[in-house]
Amino acid sequence: MRASDVFDLLRDGEPRTRAQLAEVTGLARSTISARLDALVRLGLVVPYGGVSTGGRPPSLIAFNPGARVVAGIDLGATHASAALADLDGRILGDRWAQLDIAAGPEHVLSWVEETIAALLTESGRPRTDLAAIGIGLPGPVEHDTGRAINPPIMPGWDRYDVPGRVQRSYDVPVLVDNDVNIMALGEQHAHLRDVDDLVFIKIGTGIGAGIISGGALQRGAQGTAGDLGHVFLPRGAEVTCRCGNQGCLEAVAAVPALATAIRGAGVEVAEDHDVVPLVRSGNAQAIQVVRQSGRDLGEVLATLVNLINPSVIVIGGALAGAGESVLAGIREIVYRRSLPLATQNLHITTSQAGQRAGVIGAAALAIGHVLSPDSIERAVEVSGLAVAE
Amino acid sequence: MRASDVFDLLRDGEPRTRAQLAEVTGLARSTISARLDALVRLGLVVPYGGVSTGGRPPSLIAFNPGARVVAGIDLGATHASAALADLDGRILGDRWAQLDIAAGPEHVLSWVEETIAALLTESGRPRTDLAAIGIGLPGPVEHDTGRAINPPIMPGWDRYDVPGRVQRSYDVPVLVDNDVNIMALGEQHAHLRDVDDLVFIKIGTGIGAGIISGGALQRGAQGTAGDLGHVFLPRGAEVTCRCGNQGCLEAVAAVPALATAIRGAGVEVAEDHDVVPLVRSGNAQAIQVVRQSGRDLGEVLATLVNLINPSVIVIGGALAGAGESVLAGIREIVYRRSLPLATQNLHITTSQAGQRAGVIGAAALAIGHVLSPDSIERAVEVSGLAVAE
Repeated sequence: MRASDVFDLLRDGEPRTRAQLAEVTGLARSTISARLDALVRLGLVVPYGGVSTGGRPPSLIAFNPGARVVAGIDLGATHASAALADLDGRILGDRWAQLDIAAGPEHVLSWVEETIAALLTESGRPRTDLAAIGIGLPGPVEHDTGRAINPPIMPGWDRYDVPGRVQRSYDVPVLVDNDVNIMALGEQHAHLRDVDDLVFIKIGTGIGAGIISGGALQRGAQGTAGDLGHVFLPRGAEVTCRCGNQGCLEAVAAVPALATAIRGAGVEVAEDHDVVPLVRSGNAQAIQVVRQSGRDLGEVLATLVNLINPSVIVIGGALAGAGESVLAGIREIVYRRSLPLATQNLHITTSQAGQRAGVIGAAALAIGHVLSPDSIERAVEVSGLAVAE
Repeated sequence: MRASDVFDLLRDGEPRTRAQLAEVTGLARSTISARLDALVRLGLVVPYGGVSTGGRPPSLIAFNPGARVVAGIDLGATHASAALADLDGRILGDRWAQLDIAAGPEHVLSWVEETIAALLTESGRPRTDLAAIGIGLPGPVEHDTGRAINPPIMPGWDRYDVPGRVQRSYDVPVLVDNDVNIMALGEQHAHLRDVDDLVFIKIGTGIGAGIISGGALQRGAQGTAGDLGHVFLPRGAEVTCRCGNQGCLEAVAAVPALATAIRGAGVEVAEDHDVVPLVRSGNAQAIQVVRQSGRDLGEVLATLVNLINPSVIVIGGALAGAGESVLAGIREIVYRRSLPLATQNLHITTSQAGQRAGVIGAAALAIGHVLSPDSIERAVEVSGLAVAE
């Protein structure tokens, strides 16, 4: 039973007495106290001002999420969001900007550095309070090195050392992942903390999935796990995808394909982002096209349910705004095609975190690193050495 | 840095000196010695009789896989295998029997208990040396409770408390999982120890997958992850599966469907298990049918590769005996349909562990529990208390 194990018991935010911690862990009070002393030294837990029930006040101890802060950055094709959060993921301040990822890493990451500095100043936190930075990129990312690999819409970013660049200004761990993965983390962190098996589907210009299984984000051997967009769909066998293959799901079910299909039904659609407003305004042709795209997604998601057995599927990205129209088609096929045992407790829903899923998830990625048992043990050791000296 | 962390460094079997361990971990020699003392007390590590290079002999320390033993049990529809293994998974003795799972849990688990007793006696190991038991069942299993849930071919087993029954004879942890999951573990343990992302496909009377992602077996929310057999395949849309649905992969690509298809081509096939010998004897019709089943499997595996991004797909079960005939069809479709980045380092191969995959995997499941950091820390604490008293 290490300091990090004791910390894990307190991480739910509930204050506890030393006696309660000793009882739960079966450890001696003296051992608990030694572990707590290390955590107090780090500022991660603090004495909690509980109400006395008479006599000597109970000595409560609680997680102190304000001890440090993290930055979460969500970089999209044409926009960027940044947020400062405490160690519980509570947003302390955020920014949004129109920013073209194609402007290249030097330009975009300068914005990131300046925005983090501005958010720290606004919140009145010194730079030394920053514990880590999480960044989401709109392309395939090699998570271990923090580099984008052959990203199709990110000229100049291929294999660029993102952590190295950001660490020139901030000497903290920098975690990088792709945008759908951080959206999955963000949805889980904000609304589904007890869910260990969830899949987040982003439907916009393309289609991708962030897969959390057994409580952990699954990236796969090459980091390409969750690539739903290029799964073969028989109904699209004659359609050529932007990737060059035929029959890809996103060539028939992503937003640009839906705009084309609605135009084909005789309705004027000026731009891709007019699809969702058309559906919400009740346009019958648009609703029909979107419902069919839900069925197409359902074909692939039925397979995903059989293979991965999630308990929640969250639909996010631009098309999530079409709400029930897209969910109805997905549910129709998934509940018909997947195993009864796999669907009996399956929820299919639209994102609650919405546009903030990415930035919350990027912060959660950073927090996950800072509060990992290994990081805490290292910090305890270093602070212990400092005390010993 | 706990005793279990020090143990992890030694688990590869390589003997090391205290100085080497201190260097790798950055810990003080005294700390290393304290951790090693606890592990020596448990018997998990022992002084290693290295060759002296003159002067004082180097004091080497090594993992001692013979400290304890585990039992691995693989229960099939009509057979049972059992093996005793050391903590490195080396088989010390094994048994195979014709045994009908439908005879019910009392009968089958009596065989398990007696066989473990016989294997212990044969190996000259006392009962107290047994550290854990791993069991694979041919149906859906709730891993946390060790119970089969609505298993189609296991009358009398539904929600039966397997660990409780076995623990009447052996007071050790009993881990239960389904047969495909333990085959995945077995293949990894025996032949692919460095592979963190692998999928084991069993093709016999049915079709199922055991999925290891990020180094961990993925069971999903209800434990149904890996159910490939009932994924929808357009080519089978008109075929009714034994599950009642239409278009299931196993209704066109599992062994009974292949036997039917080969008969349809005018070749006599007395029983399902004649399919593989026919292919191996070079029968052209049988080869053609099996190659097509490989393509059908490939359609579903291409989706699996996009979703999960494994680095190895292992084909096991009865049809693996058809070797290249089935692999050729799978590779043809997977390499055409899946993402280039996901296939560039993907290996598709038949099982090397073969019929022993299950029993090795059941032992590996037990070993994984015994040597988990939590189990080791608990054992260290208990032995420490014993020393203190």
